Amino acid sequence: MTGAARGERLPEWQVATWFNTDTAPTLAGLRGKVVVVEAFQMLCPGCVSHGLPQAQRVRVAFAPERVAVIGLHSVFEHHAAMTPVALAAFLHEYRIDFPVAVDAHDGDDPRPATFRAWHLAGTPSLLVLDAEGRLRLRAFGQVDDLRLGALLGGLLAEAGASGPGQAGGGPGQGAAPAAGSDCSEMACPRPSD
Amino acid sequence: MTGAARGERLPEWQVATWFNTDTAPTLAGLRGKVVVVEAFQMLCPGCVSHGLPQAQRVRVAFAPERVAVIGLHSVFEHHAAMTPVALAAFLHEYRIDFPVAVDAHDGDDPRPATFRAWHLAGTPSLLVLDAEGRLRLRAFGQVDDLRLGALLGGLLAEAGASGPGQAGGGPGQGAAPAAGSDCSEMACPRPSD
Amino acid sequence: MTGAARGERLPEWQVATWFNTDTAPTLAGLRGKVVVVEAFQMLCPGCVSHGLPQAQRVRVAFAPERVAVIGLHSVFEHHAAMTPVALAAFLHEYRIDFPVAVDAHDGDDPRPATFRAWHLAGTPSLLVLDAEGRLRLRAFGQVDDLRLGALLGGLLAEAGASGPGQAGGGPGQGAAPAAGSDCSEMACPRPSD
Amino acid sequence: MTGAARGERLPEWQVATWFNTDTAPTLAGLRGKVVVVEAFQMLCPGCVSHGLPQAQRVRVAFAPERVAVIGLHSVFEHHAAMTPVALAAFLHEYRIDFPVAVDAHDGDDPRPATFRAWHLAGTPSLLVLDAEGRLRLRAFGQVDDLRLGALLGGLLAEAGASGPGQAGGGPGQGAAPAAGSDCSEMACPRPSD
Repeated sequence: MTGAARGERLPEWQVATWFNTDTAPTLAGLRGKVVVVEAFQMLCPGCVSHGLPQAQRVRVAFAPERVAVIGLHSVFEHHAAMTPVALAAFLHEYRIDFPVAVDAHDGDDPRPATFRAWHLAGTPSLLVLDAEGRLRLRAFGQVDDLRLGALLGGLLAEAGASGPGQAGGGPGQGAAPAAGSDCSEMACPRPSD
Repeated sequence: MTGAARGERLPEWQVATWFNTDTAPTLAGLRGKVVVVEAFQMLCPGCVSHGLPQAQRVRVAFAPERVAVIGLHSVFEHHAAMTPVALAAFLHEYRIDFPVAVDAHDGDDPRPATFRAWHLAGTPSLLVLDAEGRLRLRAFGQVDDLRLGALLGGLLAEAGASGPGQAGGGPGQGAAPAAGSDCSEMACPRPSD
Repeated sequence: MTGAARGERLPEWQVATWFNTDTAPTLAGLRGKVVVVEAFQMLCPGCVSHGLPQAQRVRVAFAPERVAVIGLHSVFEHHAAMTPVALAAFLHEYRIDFPVAVDAHDGDDPRPATFRAWHLAGTPSLLVLDAEGRLRLRAFGQVDDLRLGALLGGLLAEAGASGPGQAGGGPGQGAAPAAGSDCSEMACPRPSD
Repeated sequence: MTGAARGERLPEWQVATWFNTDTAPTLAGLRGKVVVVEAFQMLCPGCVSHGLPQAQRVRVAFAPERVAVIGLHSVFEHHAAMTPVALAAFLHEYRIDFPVAVDAHDGDDPRPATFRAWHLAGTPSLLVLDAEGRLRLRAFGQVDDLRLGALLGGLLAEAGASGPGQAGGGPGQGAAPAAGSDCSEMACPRPSD
């Protein structure tokens, strides 16, 4: 199997179980949205301290109609410790509320199927797909919020410009206003004098 | 004077002195770039702990040909403490290396001229202008990196799509790759297996 | 059962398994040392972000001959997720290297035996015993480093002053010098002029 | 002049102006208390981000009858920027409320008199004197809270044990209980079952 090069489409995830969703999302079904996938392991310190909180911030900052956030639990070590039962407790305790897929294992490979098919280097890995389903970022380790935001804002602008029936979709319109701010669409009215 | 509404053009800054630049930048002269202005006071704790470090991160994360970062020292209190001499020492000690304008005072108003003309509510204030010079964000207080990044990414995409001679300017192309990463343009090659 | 009042001695821990030690430490056997016990659950966010890192800092900052740090895995919920096998993976991934006891369960009570006998309110809980084995702190939630350090420094001084054959044991002598510092015993030589 | 070796007494500070106090404290007058001196410059980033917040935490955590916190503004560079007028604005904005002395200059030496007499290496510098006025710590740069707390707790225990009329002065009694805690003297009552 050849991995997806940048701009190519990824093969669908192979999932044993889903959490936090009643349906089973597919990449095909998410076409039209920008998709952010956080591949993690629940006992990976960098995932707990950086990757998952960042994914949660993305979920809060962007409108769910425009940006989908998906967790992918890709266990390649300590399999007896990171079972679905343990994951359920973890998601509850850490208040992670976006859909999380358990990456499926097949055969004897300790690395799960999606992890292999997507050529991930480890956890945390962050993947971003544009609204056409093309891979635009695959990063292992930490990505800072400013750069991630810039990528997402660009992809939203691109989607807004080309999408059918999305007239007036300008930059930033996918980013929800900050809590407590009187800004709409990340641009603020003039303060009264 | 009426303040600039969102999307309108701001009047030019009125500057007593510039630091970190040999020329005197103007808003008109920066047309074609996205412009980020950090209005601050050197003795304002929120500016020192949040606003200025964020401005510095923007300067590092984006290509200077596409995003200009400008500091505006808008002193409206403790004038005897925050003189240009004191500011010079401050910029040196905090290693701030983007151009910084000292907002000019006229008449008896303790608030400087640009601060008033731009209807700023206080410091830190963050302003973002698109490549056409239109105001797209004016925020008092803290703006998080993810939302600011999304706005900048969107404006860069917009500028890239509409700008003359900028064919191929896609999303994220203004964001410099992270240090130590093998990613270019915020998208990463496939890791070798 | 009555719980230990402050200054009283705690009953011995009841332990199913030990990690990171070849022996099975006892409170009685640790008499003569100040003892810091971090009661935690591996899937408790406050334990992972605050309690355990603080325990690790204590282990590094104080001489092990004078301050013993012990982890107590007191699982009172999500029992199927926080098994000894899972704990082993957790300790490995988080690089926790001080001895950790698995608090034993008896009967049907979901709360483990030591947790109950010590009247713990939840996790994280921090307990400090003086060199005579008397309880000097039992705190649920976060304790700041400055206050914890003050307590430990006081107990070390007390132990140093009263202990047999510990002549010259002054304050701070149990705190190892900071890495990279030329200070000994937390007091620094005069810098050369 | 020879500097004070560890354990020796420091010469009195030489002060041009005091802030946040109606009297002019002296080392001799503070005998009987543990004294923490934070030597800083208002435009020194490490002082603003680390040294001064730590001094403020010490002021809050310990009873003022037992631990005195004093700031020493020792300006050895950028003299025109860090004037007493500027310092007053700085202390106001950063809400520093413990007494602060302006280290006096004499002759042509850019380094102020106390800074030289105490053989300080730079700013921030943290000095701790025991209740007998002897130097117990002189550290340039960052000191972590756990080690500083341990030193202070030890010195308080030492003072409590030897001081006249302080019967019953045990460890930790100088550390105020944490806000919102039901602990007294850093030891907690038994939680109700």
